[in-house]
Amino acid sequence: MKKTISFTKDVSIVSSASVVGGHEHEGPIGDVFDLHDSTDRFGKKTWEKAESEMQRLVFNVALSKAKLTEKDIDAIFAGDLLNQCAASSYGLLDYDIPYYGLYGACSTAAESMMLAAMSVSAGYFSRCAAVTSSHYCSSERQFRTPVEYGAQRSPTAQWTVTGAGAFIVGTGGRVRIAEALPGIVVDKGINDASNMGAAMAPAALNTLVRYFECGECRPDEIDLIVTGDLGWEGGAILCDLLAAEGYDIRKKYNDCGMMIYNRGEQDMHSGGSGCGCSAVVMASYIIPKIERGELGNVLFLGTGAMMSPSSIQQGEAIPGVAHLVRLCRSEDIEE
Amino acid sequence: MKKTISFTKDVSIVSSASVVGGHEHEGPIGDVFDLHDSTDRFGKKTWEKAESEMQRLVFNVALSKAKLTEKDIDAIFAGDLLNQCAASSYGLLDYDIPYYGLYGACSTAAESMMLAAMSVSAGYFSRCAAVTSSHYCSSERQFRTPVEYGAQRSPTAQWTVTGAGAFIVGTGGRVRIAEALPGIVVDKGINDASNMGAAMAPAALNTLVRYFECGECRPDEIDLIVTGDLGWEGGAILCDLLAAEGYDIRKKYNDCGMMIYNRGEQDMHSGGSGCGCSAVVMASYIIPKIERGELGNVLFLGTGAMMSPSSIQQGEAIPGVAHLVRLCRSEDIEE
Repeated sequence: MKKTISFTKDVSIVSSASVVGGHEHEGPIGDVFDLHDSTDRFGKKTWEKAESEMQRLVFNVALSKAKLTEKDIDAIFAGDLLNQCAASSYGLLDYDIPYYGLYGACSTAAESMMLAAMSVSAGYFSRCAAVTSSHYCSSERQFRTPVEYGAQRSPTAQWTVTGAGAFIVGTGGRVRIAEALPGIVVDKGINDASNMGAAMAPAALNTLVRYFECGECRPDEIDLIVTGDLGWEGGAILCDLLAAEGYDIRKKYNDCGMMIYNRGEQDMHSGGSGCGCSAVVMASYIIPKIERGELGNVLFLGTGAMMSPSSIQQGEAIPGVAHLVRLCRSEDIEE
Repeated sequence: MKKTISFTKDVSIVSSASVVGGHEHEGPIGDVFDLHDSTDRFGKKTWEKAESEMQRLVFNVALSKAKLTEKDIDAIFAGDLLNQCAASSYGLLDYDIPYYGLYGACSTAAESMMLAAMSVSAGYFSRCAAVTSSHYCSSERQFRTPVEYGAQRSPTAQWTVTGAGAFIVGTGGRVRIAEALPGIVVDKGINDASNMGAAMAPAALNTLVRYFECGECRPDEIDLIVTGDLGWEGGAILCDLLAAEGYDIRKKYNDCGMMIYNRGEQDMHSGGSGCGCSAVVMASYIIPKIERGELGNVLFLGTGAMMSPSSIQQGEAIPGVAHLVRLCRSEDIEE
């Protein structure tokens, strides 16, 4: 693909919402999230059901913030990290709305936002929802070991965020989705499942370099480049790789996984990860900053590690993907 | 959503291809498939890698049939049944093409075709690929038990097809994608994981009834309604449920899972299933029939069971989803 998708028709984020667990609420931006449950259980008996419940709740809150009902939403684009994306299919079962299931690992928040924007801008739907989640305990036992085993974590490991984010994508919102650039799956041979940041950084590099070559904004027109989620390890690698390509983004770079936890106090090693991480940070921290005019052009790169436990056991490396969405304040748009 | 998506701009299937395993090649339509390997291994050491290899091969064949190269494809929409959809992310890694990962269980072939058509018709991409797969052995050990255990199968169980299908979606092809209607996730309380047909039939009912209420074609204008894949059990349930709603589709109904195996001789119980089943039957059997003018309007309903092994173990029922795409011969279109 030579060019980014440039949305000439108004397509914007009408509302966004977040639901998080205890650690996320205790983190440096904990106060911005709409709902939290410090037990991480959300009234359910299993971690998987708790994750589904977060999806149900967060979509509810997003609807409520936009003063909409489920009848106003034409389609949902949803996904999560659980096998067969079960958190989404069960969590959104209550809603009588057409459903597109996605799997982009931690990039799913960006992938769902992009596909929702593409559908609305093309006129297929009036309003769509993009809903994603992850849960620390359901992820740990699926990808690594059950939390009760007390396995030691590597310093480069990231902590899967317990959280769900929802975005209502339509028209007339204050944060415009201006451009989109889907990611290419890239595999640079990283096979350390405790270092997802390193595995995903080359994919983020690929997408960003393509954006700078063919996107509407030059690097100096961007206020914030935010990945979700490379963590401290992967974020540093991305900045180094980009510098080698001639782009120094260090001053305007941040990562959702670096923002959500307190590095010194919370012992989360390389930072947050999971579909829920970028979803909640974008929904309740970055997007409100764009709404308030504190940020202009924001490049949001959802980064995903597209391996599975089986593929790692079979000796494969970890492919990464990075989907890019450019957000800006609606007033700033030349129509 | 009140209406189907009606593609007013030309969007069509430029080429389609299929790769299958041994049982599928021995079935009643075995001769139509483009490639087969009777060992089901495709030269690889694990079933998961064999499934990835089928995806790589089938996309290659589809490109070759359309006389295109990977540079001509702007995006791939892909998915499979493996955890984290790893067959797709690894299988298509060779190609330097933007990638959207999807999860719709066995409905993924229809979901990917629909999203590819939506993207091309809106002008975001010139040409997209929709690629999906399933493998009997990788599915059995993931969803049930490894094949070597020799577990007995229930009469209502379906047999996961070893196969991968690819569709190149663009303009100027002989089979037009005319309409699309995304499915709503429906859960009617079926919790027998050996009877997916029963779990998915209510979702197919929901989508078909919505189509008949708001689609462009009346039931009598449709030549074939083909589900993928309800099997003999689910297909019969769907016809009964539709009859109760006043629609008798029995004479124009078929199912990809019923077409791919010989019911009497191959001992596949309720028929085929898996993302690969509808993909290969549509790619190499139904779409060529539309091309040749043997079929006019075809409603293709991809049906998926959106549970996971964990959700079944935790006592949840099986939600189903059914995505609808209407196909017809390009000449038949009033522009």
